[in-house]
Amino acid sequence: MRARHKPWAESYINEHPDVVIQEPERLKGRWAEEFGNGHPIHIEVGTGKGRFITGMAEANPDINYIGIEMFRDIIVTAVQRADEAGKPANLRLLNVNAERLEDIFASGEVGRVYLNFSDPWPKVRHAKRRLTHDNFLGRYERILPPEGEVHFKTDNRGLFEYSLMNVTDYGMRLVDVSLDLHADKPEWNIMTEYEEKFSSKGQPIYRLEAAFRNEGK
Amino acid sequence: MRARHKPWAESYINEHPDVVIQEPERLKGRWAEEFGNGHPIHIEVGTGKGRFITGMAEANPDINYIGIEMFRDIIVTAVQRADEAGKPANLRLLNVNAERLEDIFASGEVGRVYLNFSDPWPKVRHAKRRLTHDNFLGRYERILPPEGEVHFKTDNRGLFEYSLMNVTDYGMRLVDVSLDLHADKPEWNIMTEYEEKFSSKGQPIYRLEAAFRNEGK
Repeated sequence: MRARHKPWAESYINEHPDVVIQEPERLKGRWAEEFGNGHPIHIEVGTGKGRFITGMAEANPDINYIGIEMFRDIIVTAVQRADEAGKPANLRLLNVNAERLEDIFASGEVGRVYLNFSDPWPKVRHAKRRLTHDNFLGRYERILPPEGEVHFKTDNRGLFEYSLMNVTDYGMRLVDVSLDLHADKPEWNIMTEYEEKFSSKGQPIYRLEAAFRNEGK
Repeated sequence: MRARHKPWAESYINEHPDVVIQEPERLKGRWAEEFGNGHPIHIEVGTGKGRFITGMAEANPDINYIGIEMFRDIIVTAVQRADEAGKPANLRLLNVNAERLEDIFASGEVGRVYLNFSDPWPKVRHAKRRLTHDNFLGRYERILPPEGEVHFKTDNRGLFEYSLMNVTDYGMRLVDVSLDLHADKPEWNIMTEYEEKFSSKGQPIYRLEAAFRNEGK
C-alpha cells in the first residue's frame, strides 16, 4: 500500500503511546497484562489504515486485537481512526515489520492471524515477501496454538491462487473457502477500505480460513 | 445433465461397438491391447455430450482417451460426435456408472482423470454423489499411478469451494489452481458445450489440478 509522505506522522504516533505500542518486544509473553484480561488475542498483519481492526475491536469486545503495519505513513491513519473511535480498550497497533512477530509474541500467545488485501507481490522473485509464503506461515505457526487459524481475504486472484496452493502444501487444512465473499453476505464480515472500493465494482472477494495441523511441530 | 428421452439411443449405441465398448470389465488390465499401443490412458468421468473428450483425442493423438457417461440419452450424442470425427483411433466411450471404475481399470492403468462441469449436487445430503467426494477420490486413486492427477473444471462456485477443501483434506496436493480459466486463455484448453455457454456470459470458470501423494497407500 502506498501513501503520501506525512511528515507529521512520527510525532502523531509518538503522542499516542497508549494506542501504538513502542518497543513491543518488552511485552512478549505479557500481552494479557497489557490488556488487563485473559481474552484471546487476534492480530492483523498488514493492518493498513485500520478500518478492519477497529471495526473488529468495536464488534467483539471480548477479543483483544492488535494491528501490525510496517509503514508509518499508513498506520498513522489507523491511529487517527482508533482515536476517533474513543481508543477501544481491546485495540492496540504496532508499527513494526511482520518479520519480527516471534520477537513480539510468545508461542501460543496469539489466537488467530488475519491477513486482508495483502500486497500481492506478483513477480515470482518476490514470492518470499507474500504474507502467505512459507517464511511467514512458519512465523504464524510459532506464535499460534496448535490448530491455530489464519483468515485471509483478497481481491487479487493471483495471490489467492498462490495462497490456496501454498497453505495446503505447507500442510495447513482449508477450514473454509469462499470465492465470492460478498455474494454470501456474511453478517460478521467487516470490510476494509480496499474491500469496499473493489467489491462495489463487482469484483469478487476471495477468502479462506486455514488451520495448522497439530502434528507436534 | 438432463436430456430428452431418445428411444433410438440404445440401438444407435449398439450399432457402434467400436466406439462404445460393451462389457468393459473384460478389458480390465488389457486396455493397451484394445488401443493397440502403450500410450497413456486418460479418462473423463461424466463425459456428457463428448465435446471435450473428442477434442482432446483429436488434439493429442499420442494419448488414449476414454469418456465415461452413465446416461444413455446423453452419451449417444458423444457417439454421434465421435462418428462424425471419423472415429478417432485413440477414443473410446463407456456407458457405465463411475462407481464401477475399479471393475474396469487395473491399478495404475489410468494415467489421468478429468472431471468437467460435474453435477454439483448442492444439497449436503447428496454430497456423496459429488465426483470430488472421498468415495470417488478413492476410486481414482486406486486406478491411477502414485502421484496421479485429477484435473477438474467447473463454473459452479459451491462445488469448486467444496472440492478445494475436500481434495486437500483427502491429502491431495494442489498442483495448479485457476479462478478464472478463460482470463488466462491457455491454448491447451478444450471447451465443453457447457463451458462455452457459461463463459460467454462472463461467468468465471474455475479449474484445479490435484495430485495424490505417494505415501504408500
